[in-house]
Amino acid sequence: MALDVGVIGVGMIGQEHIRRLDGGPGGSRVVAVADADAERAASVAERLPAAKALPTGEELIASDAVDAVVVTSWGPTHEPYVLACIAAGKPVFCEKPLATTQDACRRIVAAEVAAGRRLVQVGFNRRYDPAHRALKQAVDGGAIGAPLLVHGAHRNASVPSHYTRDMSIADTAIHEIDELRWLLGQEIVAAHVLTPRKSSRGGELQDPLLVLFEMADGVLVDLEVSVNIHFGYEIRCEVTGETGTVELADPAPVTIRREGAVAGLVPADWRERFALSYDIELREWIDTVVAARPPAGPSAWDGYAAQVVADAALSSLHSGGRVPIELPTRPGLYDPVTAP
Amino acid sequence: MALDVGVIGVGMIGQEHIRRLDGGPGGSRVVAVADADAERAASVAERLPAAKALPTGEELIASDAVDAVVVTSWGPTHEPYVLACIAAGKPVFCEKPLATTQDACRRIVAAEVAAGRRLVQVGFNRRYDPAHRALKQAVDGGAIGAPLLVHGAHRNASVPSHYTRDMSIADTAIHEIDELRWLLGQEIVAAHVLTPRKSSRGGELQDPLLVLFEMADGVLVDLEVSVNIHFGYEIRCEVTGETGTVELADPAPVTIRREGAVAGLVPADWRERFALSYDIELREWIDTVVAARPPAGPSAWDGYAAQVVADAALSSLHSGGRVPIELPTRPGLYDPVTAP
Amino acid sequence: MALDVGVIGVGMIGQEHIRRLDGGPGGSRVVAVADADAERAASVAERLPAAKALPTGEELIASDAVDAVVVTSWGPTHEPYVLACIAAGKPVFCEKPLATTQDACRRIVAAEVAAGRRLVQVGFNRRYDPAHRALKQAVDGGAIGAPLLVHGAHRNASVPSHYTRDMSIADTAIHEIDELRWLLGQEIVAAHVLTPRKSSRGGELQDPLLVLFEMADGVLVDLEVSVNIHFGYEIRCEVTGETGTVELADPAPVTIRREGAVAGLVPADWRERFALSYDIELREWIDTVVAARPPAGPSAWDGYAAQVVADAALSSLHSGGRVPIELPTRPGLYDPVTAP
Amino acid sequence: MALDVGVIGVGMIGQEHIRRLDGGPGGSRVVAVADADAERAASVAERLPAAKALPTGEELIASDAVDAVVVTSWGPTHEPYVLACIAAGKPVFCEKPLATTQDACRRIVAAEVAAGRRLVQVGFNRRYDPAHRALKQAVDGGAIGAPLLVHGAHRNASVPSHYTRDMSIADTAIHEIDELRWLLGQEIVAAHVLTPRKSSRGGELQDPLLVLFEMADGVLVDLEVSVNIHFGYEIRCEVTGETGTVELADPAPVTIRREGAVAGLVPADWRERFALSYDIELREWIDTVVAARPPAGPSAWDGYAAQVVADAALSSLHSGGRVPIELPTRPGLYDPVTAP
Repeated sequence: MALDVGVIGVGMIGQEHIRRLDGGPGGSRVVAVADADAERAASVAERLPAAKALPTGEELIASDAVDAVVVTSWGPTHEPYVLACIAAGKPVFCEKPLATTQDACRRIVAAEVAAGRRLVQVGFNRRYDPAHRALKQAVDGGAIGAPLLVHGAHRNASVPSHYTRDMSIADTAIHEIDELRWLLGQEIVAAHVLTPRKSSRGGELQDPLLVLFEMADGVLVDLEVSVNIHFGYEIRCEVTGETGTVELADPAPVTIRREGAVAGLVPADWRERFALSYDIELREWIDTVVAARPPAGPSAWDGYAAQVVADAALSSLHSGGRVPIELPTRPGLYDPVTAP
Repeated sequence: MALDVGVIGVGMIGQEHIRRLDGGPGGSRVVAVADADAERAASVAERLPAAKALPTGEELIASDAVDAVVVTSWGPTHEPYVLACIAAGKPVFCEKPLATTQDACRRIVAAEVAAGRRLVQVGFNRRYDPAHRALKQAVDGGAIGAPLLVHGAHRNASVPSHYTRDMSIADTAIHEIDELRWLLGQEIVAAHVLTPRKSSRGGELQDPLLVLFEMADGVLVDLEVSVNIHFGYEIRCEVTGETGTVELADPAPVTIRREGAVAGLVPADWRERFALSYDIELREWIDTVVAARPPAGPSAWDGYAAQVVADAALSSLHSGGRVPIELPTRPGLYDPVTAP
Repeated sequence: MALDVGVIGVGMIGQEHIRRLDGGPGGSRVVAVADADAERAASVAERLPAAKALPTGEELIASDAVDAVVVTSWGPTHEPYVLACIAAGKPVFCEKPLATTQDACRRIVAAEVAAGRRLVQVGFNRRYDPAHRALKQAVDGGAIGAPLLVHGAHRNASVPSHYTRDMSIADTAIHEIDELRWLLGQEIVAAHVLTPRKSSRGGELQDPLLVLFEMADGVLVDLEVSVNIHFGYEIRCEVTGETGTVELADPAPVTIRREGAVAGLVPADWRERFALSYDIELREWIDTVVAARPPAGPSAWDGYAAQVVADAALSSLHSGGRVPIELPTRPGLYDPVTAP
Repeated sequence: MALDVGVIGVGMIGQEHIRRLDGGPGGSRVVAVADADAERAASVAERLPAAKALPTGEELIASDAVDAVVVTSWGPTHEPYVLACIAAGKPVFCEKPLATTQDACRRIVAAEVAAGRRLVQVGFNRRYDPAHRALKQAVDGGAIGAPLLVHGAHRNASVPSHYTRDMSIADTAIHEIDELRWLLGQEIVAAHVLTPRKSSRGGELQDPLLVLFEMADGVLVDLEVSVNIHFGYEIRCEVTGETGTVELADPAPVTIRREGAVAGLVPADWRERFALSYDIELREWIDTVVAARPPAGPSAWDGYAAQVVADAALSSLHSGGRVPIELPTRPGLYDPVTAP
């Protein structure tokens, strides 16, 4: 009954997930790890009670000891690993992005459709954050009437020196791309990236961006992406509806009166802000795998759709204009599950 | 020493101002009123200890009993009244808009420049709201580094049936147009009005709008204009800078725990939200008039500039595209006053 | 029609009030000042357009030029000045406390009752703070059901070196004593002062205090008095009722995200926090004086009752026990005004 | 490696815990249940994959299949079950209260001391609530200087008809009794219960209460206990220190603008408010049991100390006076663990 998991890629996020998977809910444990850096794999395996380091991700996927796979390796390697999992008929949790190009994503979707059953879940963790779930619940429950506008902000205190302009979309705004599709239950049909006055804190980087998304039903989204804003990490979102609005509350658990201010402390980074969402995400994934149900989280199709939107936003960032987006028809495999 | 004021136009806003002007600070009193509806003028005058109803605004302006004039009549009549005040050399406080066309505004600016001294103040009351002043103080004081982005929302619970699509810009967003120029100390160089999914609450009205403004230094502004949002009246504004942000706090004076919620009450309308700003606006105007100083508030040039931007935004609303804005050179009369 | 005011005592609070009274609403102006320090009186008078410095408060009260008197002198001098005003039949606004002993307060009440009309208003400014008014409105309007408990906090960043333990009650908590009587419409029937662990920041001073008050109808109040709390000045109050609670909201007008915190700035002192309440207090007082109506604010009786409660609290502070309070019957002169 | 748990008492809280324990972290599972109501035990066991219903708690404790025991039965039965666990050398998690009398608690402490090792953890879940942990972290980290005062409120929307006056202390305020000892790292040395005006919503019940606690170092605590406050469930706590304060922030995850209010939703009850704290509590307990470490949570001594304080508070509630509290010397077994 316990779930034996193999993890491919044991860098920072990989190790975070291992902490949650080994001795995790339902008796999950990590039985195998693999990494491009064999020494790192060995050293991680050593610290785990039941894990072996395997030489390659392919061998890990093929191992009889492994019931399900978590892919947290470098983005460009996601495609082959996920395809191998599908070929092996093993459930796979793949960190975002599903793959780094929409063609790669489409190949994954095609393979899954050919296999005839859903094995892939993509690590868009926003859907598991209790505050984002409360946001969706308020919208879906009619608390504000039909949604008309969304204003969001994605703020990082700083980014490493290798961070490029395109990463503002491909690595950062990609979270909101998935979140918006989920929150509003609509596809994104156009993207337009605007470039305001540049922060002097980011060197050559174009920071911040203002990203506009148009949803299929006309809801208009404007998203601030600030990746060098110094004061801390923060995610904001307000949905304006016909009769009211709902927004994420300040997540600070305590209010401190000190030195001339009444203040809530801001998380330093996404790890701190979203720790609980990762717990829930992996717990719910494990539950579906153990129960042999299809994954309930973001699907390969969601990973593909996000990549298509991200590509359009990148194209807008490069060209300066509005870029319309058209998705192919969604395969029936990805139809929302409804009661019989 | 007491200031004797005449008021042209005694509808709702006119009567609100009279309440502040008669027996107001510095011994101001209302000595004359005029209105297109003579009966209304008579009935208002009757209730005031020192006021006479005069047959026309022109006679009021000409009256020796009147030291200074407040124009709160119907928008299209502003131009002739303000021009007459300039011709008579009398200080005039004109409710926004200064005039309903930019040509009319330009004629007022030209007349004032020809007169060689500033007599006109325009009733953009946002500049007098303590919260907006605290916002500007934080930005100017460097609390958030150089400003890069602004997000605003202008929300009305409902609008009367005669309210048209163009009024969302000309009557509603006009407040933010002046506010942004003042808050950021920059001219607006482009406007782009986007039309999201339409609220079902506004009949034929295109509501809400998302208005984008570009400032001369590249700061990018996105403004939600919702005029039928039912829950109440609300003004929101957050300025994102290089190292942090500052935003208007929720203005509710008390927090009530009741019926499953921890809540602040929302003002019903602008009268309730901005009552104090009108007090301060008129008190400061009276102070400058009594002291025979030029008005420190929004000038005829500000009224003109706002109208030019509003016209560009209207043009964008009609055409759907981004509309660049160019202002003529500002006459020296309107140079900011600096210490000698 | 304009009101000519004389001000006795032109120290800090006196000068603050002069700023509001001279050229204030309804054409009020300051025509005479007096101070124990004659030079200070002269120098203040010099800066005012219409004021003379008079040698004594008594002469000021007697002067035909003076319509109404504001007493902002040293506490122990309040009694003779207020009695002289009553004798002269002149309206008098006396800063809190009405007098420094309950006997002195009672003599003032007796004099006013003998005169047969109300001339005295005491400067308890809390009743004029918009947030406190909203608090009372919520309670009176039934938003939380019948009130049962009140929790308050009165926090000062620091106090001068001459501040003594007794001043925590007589000068500081006296504000809440009046506020509670007004807010709840009930007399205070017992006081009990508890002394928690002493702050190391106040030297010998017993700081903070926890003051318990029992209202006539059983509502129980606990009040923190902290006078060296460093972070800033703050007044908190929450009323717990049968079905909910209402409390003062954080008064910061803007929220700043900066240096790891989402923060509202705290006022430095009471001048900043309560500036608007003083404006309203004096404006409403002037209105009643000009209209020849009895003052609507805190009466001599309120000043007396507050002093009786303060004395009981001081007695509790000295003895450590609970002290019951009994007021004599309120003279009919102080019956609340009701519609005919 | 997986932990096999037996649960005695499968009412509401028992079933809540079973949900967390079966297929929980570290591979814990529920292998046995017992209940005074044998049918209920059977029906709960049936729904669990690995659990048997046993006829009595004693048999469950004795069963070789059971590694560790969770006691969630009726309070008066806690003592014999916990003593049996100690006798059997099995780790036991006992819901609060440890036992219903201080004598019973003392017998448990004595048994554990005689056994020479810690086997008992008491279910005071507040210590696991992330917000309460942040509160303690701020206090311990010196954010507000030395603590001097604490103000708390424990509010229930309603209580069942069998709820008695004494339960306000023994079942409700008992949570704060443990929390204060943990938060401030001090024993409580006196209790004084005050009875304000009675809510009309609670029938004969004396509701609310104002409970005063004195800590060994002089910190003074005042706690509102309201158990019929209708609007919802809420826990508030503010610690006032020498230089500032820290308080629990409003836990609502989203802010909704709707129907004239800006509101956060309030939890309906403790289950909703503290769900996450129970998750963490049981996860951390399982971790220590699996690692064969002594439990890190509230000990039998903590359970005993809480009962002594509760008894003093009850005595104060009955007598109306302040009741001093003296604990015997803490056995060395309960010394805080320090690094070697």
